[in-house]
Formats: sequence, C-alpha cells, structure tokens
Amino acid sequence: MRTTSGWQADRSTGALRLTSLERRDLRPDDLAVRVDHCGVCHSDLHALLSWLDRGDTEKPTLVPGHEFTGVVTGTGSAVTRFTVGDPVAVGNIVDSCGTCTMCLAGQENFCRTFPTLTYGGADREDGTVTLGGYSREYVVRDAFAYPLPPGLDPAGAAPLLCAGITVWEPLHALGVGPGSRVAVAGLGGLGHLAVRMSVALGATTSVISRSPDKAEDARRLGAHSLVVSTDEARMEAARDGFDVVIDTISAPHDLGPYLRLVALDGTLSHLGHLGPVTVDTTDLLIGRKKLSSAGSGGRPATAAMLDFCAEKGITAEIEVLPSARVNEALDRLGRNDVRYRFVLDMSDLDRE
Amino acid sequence: MRTTSGWQADRSTGALRLTSLERRDLRPDDLAVRVDHCGVCHSDLHALLSWLDRGDTEKPTLVPGHEFTGVVTGTGSAVTRFTVGDPVAVGNIVDSCGTCTMCLAGQENFCRTFPTLTYGGADREDGTVTLGGYSREYVVRDAFAYPLPPGLDPAGAAPLLCAGITVWEPLHALGVGPGSRVAVAGLGGLGHLAVRMSVALGATTSVISRSPDKAEDARRLGAHSLVVSTDEARMEAARDGFDVVIDTISAPHDLGPYLRLVALDGTLSHLGHLGPVTVDTTDLLIGRKKLSSAGSGGRPATAAMLDFCAEKGITAEIEVLPSARVNEALDRLGRNDVRYRFVLDMSDLDRE
Repeated sequence: MRTTSGWQADRSTGALRLTSLERRDLRPDDLAVRVDHCGVCHSDLHALLSWLDRGDTEKPTLVPGHEFTGVVTGTGSAVTRFTVGDPVAVGNIVDSCGTCTMCLAGQENFCRTFPTLTYGGADREDGTVTLGGYSREYVVRDAFAYPLPPGLDPAGAAPLLCAGITVWEPLHALGVGPGSRVAVAGLGGLGHLAVRMSVALGATTSVISRSPDKAEDARRLGAHSLVVSTDEARMEAARDGFDVVIDTISAPHDLGPYLRLVALDGTLSHLGHLGPVTVDTTDLLIGRKKLSSAGSGGRPATAAMLDFCAEKGITAEIEVLPSARVNEALDRLGRNDVRYRFVLDMSDLDRE
Repeated sequence: MRTTSGWQADRSTGALRLTSLERRDLRPDDLAVRVDHCGVCHSDLHALLSWLDRGDTEKPTLVPGHEFTGVVTGTGSAVTRFTVGDPVAVGNIVDSCGTCTMCLAGQENFCRTFPTLTYGGADREDGTVTLGGYSREYVVRDAFAYPLPPGLDPAGAAPLLCAGITVWEPLHALGVGPGSRVAVAGLGGLGHLAVRMSVALGATTSVISRSPDKAEDARRLGAHSLVVSTDEARMEAARDGFDVVIDTISAPHDLGPYLRLVALDGTLSHLGHLGPVTVDTTDLLIGRKKLSSAGSGGRPATAAMLDFCAEKGITAEIEVLPSARVNEALDRLGRNDVRYRFVLDMSDLDRE
C-alpha cells in the first residue's frame, strides 16, 4: 500500500479533517498522480450532506474531489501513454465495464453497470471504496487519466474535468456552432464555462439570470446579451429565440419559462439539478421542443473538450485556496459565494 | 347564411343530437365542402367531456369533428387552388395569424396567437364559435384545405388529418428513415398509423404494448416485432435500443420504462396525453436522451404527409358507421373498443 494525506469527512461534525490515506500499489495499468489542484464541485457538497444523512455504514469513509490536475509520479508496468512527469487530469469517473454498448460507444459515463466514481465508488478489482482528489495522491487506471494539454493553467483546468465536460457534452451533442443561438440559464460553475465554450464554438450566446448585476460578468465571459429572468417583457421578447438552452440552475425550478425560450425543434438541456422534474407537455408540444439532460462525459468527449479548451484558451474562473481551507470553501459554495469555482491547492499538504 | 345539418352536443345529457346548423356565406377565399367522412378522434371525447364539465357559456354550442374528407361544392371569388368537385381534406386547424415566426416557418399549428381550431375556436373575422366536421357541410379558408391525393380512400384518409399528421410530425422532424430503429408504444388510433408510416419510411419498427394479443395486428400493420411492456426481461433486453420512441398511450403513465428504451441521443416523443408529466432527470441524463411532444402539424407538413401516404398506400384502419351512430362510436371509443378509428359516413344526413 501507498500512503498519502487528504481531507476526509468527519461523521459527527461533517467537517473535513486532514488524515492519512492509503492508496493501492500500482497495478500494471495504473498511474500514481500527484494531485496539485482539485476543484470544489457542487456534487461534493451534495455527497457530503447525503453521506451524513444516510449514516452510510457501507461507505465508512468519504474523501471528496473529482476534478483534478497534477503530475504523473509513477506508472504501472503496462502503461505506455504516460511517463513520470507528465501533466494529467482526472474527472469524476475512474473505471467502467468497457464492454457494454455505452462503453463501446465511448460513453463510459453511461456504462450499463454504472461507472466507477472517483470517490464513493467501489473499485472493480478489490471492492474498496474509492477516495477522491481532496488528497495529495491518487492512483488511477491510465485509461481514465487525460494528458493535460500544454498551455492550460493546471488550476483553472481542474474544473473542466467535471463542470466543463458536463456543459461540453450537450453543446457538442446538440451541434452548437456558428449560427447557433444559445442561452445559458444560471451563471455559476457550470454556466460560466458553458458561456465560454458556446462563444468559442461560434454561437450567439445569451445569459439568462435573475440578477441584473451579472451583466458585467456575462459580457466579460463573452456573452452577447443578458436576459433578466424576472423581466417578463424581456422574457416574452426572447420567446422561441434559442436553438439550445443550457439550464444550469442548481435549485429545483419551473422549467416552463425556460422551455418557452427554446426555438422550433430546439432543446432545453437541464443540467443543474438531478431528480424528478415536471413539465407541461404543452410547453414541449408547441414548437416541437425537446427536454434533455447531461452529466459528465465519456473518454473521447473529455479528451476532445480538453483539446478544444487548450486551443481556445478556456479555463474556469477560479478562486484558489490552500487545501487547508476546504471547509471554508464548502461553506461559501453552499451560500453561492464564489465566482465561479473554488480550486484547492493541494501543495500545502506537503508541509502538514 | 348557409344551412346544413350536423351533430351538436346536448348540454344536459352530453349526447350528440341532430340539428340544423348555420355556415357563413363564402368569403372570397372560402371553400364550401360537402363532408363525406369524418374521423372520431379521442380529442372529440375530451372536448365533449370538458365542455360539459365547464358549463361553458362562452361556447354555447359544440359540434365536434376535425379530421374529415369531402368534396368542394362552392368556391369564393378569389379561390384558385380548388374548383367544385375537387376531393379535399381538412384537419384540426382552419386559420392562423399568418405573420408570426411559427406561421412563417410553416408551423401554423404553433401560431403565436394560437391557431383557430376547426371546432370550438373563434373565427378570426366575426368571432363566432367554429363548428366541426360532424356535419354535412363545412366552410373553410382555402389555405387550410388540402387536395386529397388520388388513390387514397376518402374514408380511411380522414383520420390522417389529425391522428396521421400528429405522428408524422415527430417521425419527420426526428429524421426517421432507413436504418432508424423506432418503437411505437400503444397501438390505437395514433399508434397504428405511426407503425404504418414508420415502416413505410424504412425504419425497423417495433410495437410496445401491454397486450400480447396485439402481436398479430402489429405484424399485419408491418411491425417487425412486439415487445410486451409487462415482460420485464424483454423490456430490459430492449433497453437503449430505439432511436425514436413514439409514445401514443393516452392515459397518464410513468415515462421511465419508455425512456429506458431510447438509445443514446435518441428521443421519446410523448403524444398520447396532454398535461403535466414528471420524469426523472436521470432517465434523460443516462444516454443523453430527449423528451419531446407533438400535436397536429403545419400546412406544408400536412400536405407532404398526404402525398407520402398516397405514394405508400397508407390510410387508417377504420370502422365506418353512419353518422347517426355517432353516440355509439363515442361510447365505444371511451372504452377503447375500436380497431383503430371510427369514421362517420355523413351521407346519411341527406336522408334525415
């Protein structure tokens, strides 16, 4: 076993505490990765809260973190794609069956046996619970690590591995490009990356936000306009106006007003919130509109997204904190007090 | 005013009673149509029940019927597309604003001012309530009448104007053709036409039904297989297997099992039931699936659908009843006792 340190949830308080963690010895197709930067995702907060709620005895340990970048520090005997010293990135999936129709289609995120999650999953060989990237070292199958393209800031790139791929997938699958009209509802961790990618894909891009004070940010991110969602006249004028609406609003909300923004044969991609949603069939029928969702991505799309971001110079807008301030980051994230993503600098763990 | 006869709902009993009806004198762009055959649509039943429930004083009169065929018996002074004696078909829309983005896109069914319905709508010139096709004569703007292509049986063609276009629109908009895998859930008025059209478009077509006894009908309609929806193993084997699922089930139902049949990037088109539907976002997310709906169609699509049906010899499978048996037809329709559409033969009104 290898030993590293990381931030593990405390069952009684819910706070993350620094602790020593074990990583498996390298299998032939494994990489050891020194984690330098790990994004703080809304899912981390959800996972923490649900782990506390459940009093989950099957998963005695929770170490969050599933969007990180770092450097290869060791390779298994069969690894050929990476060598020690290579910059790498890892997202929220670290394994899948590899044989189902979804895996064969390069959509490991939809693996019929459910993909192995970067934390809180069960390792496919030994059944141990996976521990995430709020840690100084991670051991991962090389197939689920991505070369970090040159020119991408490793801190700003970390959130691309979850927030980034989650918005890239629908933009890509829905064929967004020059001439497309895209609206991004909600300007947070997902939304601000959706704006940057949509603009870089050549689409006319609008932000839909409750807050008129997001106008300056929207402009800076490249958006062509901002529609304030509480301005009924403006929303009515925008009706049927967007081929794609990327809805990144994380709280449950009425989809009706956003479906009405979708153009004939267009799609609302509902990303921000999992769980049941209710729509009025009429809001789909009139204009032959589609409702979809997305989350994470397969290996080919993740690699393509990283290349695209490198080419276009897209990273997340981040606030970097030393990992020792992880509890502060989670607390502020819960209050939406971040523009637009916290990234933990894990190098402080070398000094602990 | 012109006088004709037709079947009008009785406020106290809900039964349809034969009565004398007035039709407007022909405007320059009007046709007078002798209605020969009118389909009995599920919407007619819904309209009747909700009219009784509401005690709608704004609409004192209800004459249902919005899928009919007949012959032109008179033309307004400006009509050039039709002459007396032409076989014609009329669907569920008889007017629209003509100037909004949806009308300009040929989707008058999505008119921003709401299209004028064939019955229960308000005429755009004089505000009178439109009276439907359960009648021996209808007066309609020529723009909303369609030449009935030669070779189509006028009785079997009548249901194409509502049931037919409703299933044609999603098949067409979703690009169904050779190589497509299509499932049709529910084998009724909509479903049986969806099967015939899907097969004629070259798609591999399956029927999803609760009833194993629909297998013979499914085969006869051209379907390549039948999946019994209560057979869990069969449903699991069919998972992720269809590019398009046309859901024509008219009762509210859980969409989850049907979404799970949709293939990667495929679409469930939910047609049979209007109103709110609840889906689990995860059922959309996993496989990047889409939920859509459709209903009726625009003028270009309706004309194209009729041409396609004439070319492929597609009409509805019908049971023809003299119009005097309309109450029996509605009663049996309410009990799903029809394979697959009642069509009223209106010629008996000449003898009343």
